Amino acid sequence: MARVLTPQNEDFPRWYQDLVAKAELADNGPVKGQQVIRPTGYAIWERMVDEIDDRIKETGTENASFPLLVPQSYLQREAQHVEGFAPECWTVTHAGGKELDEPVVIRPTSETVIGEYMAKWVQSYRDLPLLLNQWANVMRYEMRTRLFLRTSEFLWQEGHTAHATYEDAHAFTLRILHEVYADFMRDVLAVPVLAGLKTADERFAGALNTFTCEAMMRDGKALQMGTSHELGQNFATAFDIRYLGSDGKEHLSWTTSWGVSTRLVGGLIMAHGDDNGLRLPPRLAPVQAYLMTVKDGEGVAETAAKLRDELKAVGVRVKHDDRVDIPFGRRAVDAELKGHPIRIELGPRDLAAGKATIVRRVDGSKTPVPLESVVTAVVDALAADQAALYDEALRFREERTVDVSDVGEAVEAAATGFARIPWDKCGVEGEATAAQSGVTVRCLQRADGTVPDNEEPGLVATLARAY
Amino acid sequence: MARVLTPQNEDFPRWYQDLVAKAELADNGPVKGQQVIRPTGYAIWERMVDEIDDRIKETGTENASFPLLVPQSYLQREAQHVEGFAPECWTVTHAGGKELDEPVVIRPTSETVIGEYMAKWVQSYRDLPLLLNQWANVMRYEMRTRLFLRTSEFLWQEGHTAHATYEDAHAFTLRILHEVYADFMRDVLAVPVLAGLKTADERFAGALNTFTCEAMMRDGKALQMGTSHELGQNFATAFDIRYLGSDGKEHLSWTTSWGVSTRLVGGLIMAHGDDNGLRLPPRLAPVQAYLMTVKDGEGVAETAAKLRDELKAVGVRVKHDDRVDIPFGRRAVDAELKGHPIRIELGPRDLAAGKATIVRRVDGSKTPVPLESVVTAVVDALAADQAALYDEALRFREERTVDVSDVGEAVEAAATGFARIPWDKCGVEGEATAAQSGVTVRCLQRADGTVPDNEEPGLVATLARAY
Ligand SMILES: [Zn+2]
Ligand SMILES: [Zn+2]
Repeated sequence: MARVLTPQNEDFPRWYQDLVAKAELADNGPVKGQQVIRPTGYAIWERMVDEIDDRIKETGTENASFPLLVPQSYLQREAQHVEGFAPECWTVTHAGGKELDEPVVIRPTSETVIGEYMAKWVQSYRDLPLLLNQWANVMRYEMRTRLFLRTSEFLWQEGHTAHATYEDAHAFTLRILHEVYADFMRDVLAVPVLAGLKTADERFAGALNTFTCEAMMRDGKALQMGTSHELGQNFATAFDIRYLGSDGKEHLSWTTSWGVSTRLVGGLIMAHGDDNGLRLPPRLAPVQAYLMTVKDGEGVAETAAKLRDELKAVGVRVKHDDRVDIPFGRRAVDAELKGHPIRIELGPRDLAAGKATIVRRVDGSKTPVPLESVVTAVVDALAADQAALYDEALRFREERTVDVSDVGEAVEAAATGFARIPWDKCGVEGEATAAQSGVTVRCLQRADGTVPDNEEPGLVATLARAY
Repeated sequence: MARVLTPQNEDFPRWYQDLVAKAELADNGPVKGQQVIRPTGYAIWERMVDEIDDRIKETGTENASFPLLVPQSYLQREAQHVEGFAPECWTVTHAGGKELDEPVVIRPTSETVIGEYMAKWVQSYRDLPLLLNQWANVMRYEMRTRLFLRTSEFLWQEGHTAHATYEDAHAFTLRILHEVYADFMRDVLAVPVLAGLKTADERFAGALNTFTCEAMMRDGKALQMGTSHELGQNFATAFDIRYLGSDGKEHLSWTTSWGVSTRLVGGLIMAHGDDNGLRLPPRLAPVQAYLMTVKDGEGVAETAAKLRDELKAVGVRVKHDDRVDIPFGRRAVDAELKGHPIRIELGPRDLAAGKATIVRRVDGSKTPVPLESVVTAVVDALAADQAALYDEALRFREERTVDVSDVGEAVEAAATGFARIPWDKCGVEGEATAAQSGVTVRCLQRADGTVPDNEEPGLVATLARAY
């Protein structure tokens, strides 16, 4: 068979670009760095949104919608924040044919505008915690862009919460990290992630602490999959988010913010994709079972319709492809590119034998299965393949993670994967040295792999090249 | 009881403004004309999105995401389109600290950018119909704004489709009007709508025909709830959306576009709201049954929890309010403002009598119900109240609709409601005359109330003041 994609080990970035184009996931937009997410790519994002939104709502957080445009003066109220974001802003200067009195920027993130409204809405301790989230588009100017991974405009959720105490805000930041992000990434995306603390250097502009989920891609590089920021009282001070406590006194709130974006689609592709295309974890896949009529023939359409209905009835997301006027081989290649977990092939010959062929995307295995067992076989395969993808990604990461004892070795190891080093053997100086070779500290964890509340003695740093 | 809102018949616009603020639905944004949709308002929009999205997907349409920013040159390719939208644009001139080579505008709508991509993706007749939709924010400069109804930024869905033939495009435009929009508005929003054809004057900039759903608000004015545009070959010509037909020849496609927006939330408020607040139709309501612990007492919490679980088990969206530290009266007023269809009140006295009180928002009726019958009573009331709201709105519209025979009478009748007049007794001249009094032709229908395919003899025009 002619190769469809540039092989991963020949040129990984090229493989990624080929896959995004040929699986019809996304296209470049007409304006620099913007993207068009095509239906196949967007269906993946919609499934992510569903799963993440459920988990966010489980925490008691409510969705809302804040404006796209933010006055420049808002951004300036938090000194570190403006320093971090001002250079990336897209600026609107005219509207309705006239120049605006004050230029406004397209939100690069919404801490400032939401801070302004939190200050209005929070009066008493009874109004806390105030737990808000929005699904929105944001824009940041980028010199080099890559579809899904780094684009001027991206889609994301941004959570913003206000709390009465440090403890409550801190606990919530970590709850989001664990129960929303890491849980979703591991259980739905089948991507093993390292949850940890960012170093001061990698912290969100204006945060006290940033917590992160980091994953290894199939080229050994790291991708930051999502972050949860403990903002302390920085934004509460800048926006005057005060409340009357049960003690009758005024207090400043403590805030958090946290987000994941369409970048996750890029992470998913690079964590599981192979030389034939995408491999979607069954729990996420918009189409779990892709039922293909190989050729028309006596009874084929009826049997296919029956199988489709039976699969639907047990909750399998099934799509029937009966486009027999398109060569079967082309459709099969396309199904592999798009990464549907299970393909069911049914034609006159199969039907005569009372069977259908089940093809598993995870390993390419093909098994003829008696028609009456197809539903059970599909359900079993979906469960097994969810686990198989996770295990494969975990094994891959473990094989490419080495413990090192100095920064030089860390940089070397980062050529192919992750390097673990005691943080006190690296430190901010080692971090700066590594950065010169394009290697960064992805996160700090306790020696047992748990997430520290703050920098504390004995932490282990994971270094890698990163997207 | 002190009045909570300005009464509708005292000052309707003021009533609306009070309600949006006190029910915590939305706030003005920091930039002129933008809005903040608060969680209570956003939950209503989320339910709308769910229901509309299901109906859109039923038509075979797939969701995608196109860029926020559109090059000015795109807008200019369709002459009528640019004339209609250029004066409303918000323009981005700088990014990353530098001036852009070409100014770009924040999309006021996406026909142009989507047209550009359709031209890339459509090659052969096999690629048609191409059925796309996106949920997105758009911006149009507005001088006078009102939350939900007319805002500079709003949230919406915009569908864009390309077809091989006039007939197919035409049928799809009407399918969206009937099966997606009118069906949703009548069955979920409980708002009776007139589906009809817009006059040339009210047509979308660049369309062949615009079809619309129009509803009467409780002040007798009309609100355009959603539109479906037949774009003919205008955009296909401007963007060169061609396909190779099964006849081996090149053809121009036929396109459509259609949208509904957060304006629907405003329409819902004004179609059903009363002097105590919002009245949400049960099928839409994010909270269908609002279960209130009146006071704490022996067994109250347990019984409430049991009721809540039983209601959930039969699929009722229930919320338990056990904030007994807030005065009951205040919570009840708030529940009325927010329009939850059913309130269930439970306190020690009710419990002692083995009952709970069911309060129906639609008519304010209060009925003590034995505890074991609460679930059935709630389910029955939800169904009955969905119908009651629709019937009330329909009766209201019928009472305020009069048949007239000249434009002068139409303008007079439009002071309180809708005027129906044979279109040949009004015509474009009558339309211009009426417009001078702020009265517009909302739609043209056949005499039997059905939707004409085009202007044809014997149509009836409905005139009204409009939002
Ligand atoms: Zn902790
Ligand atoms: Zn027709």
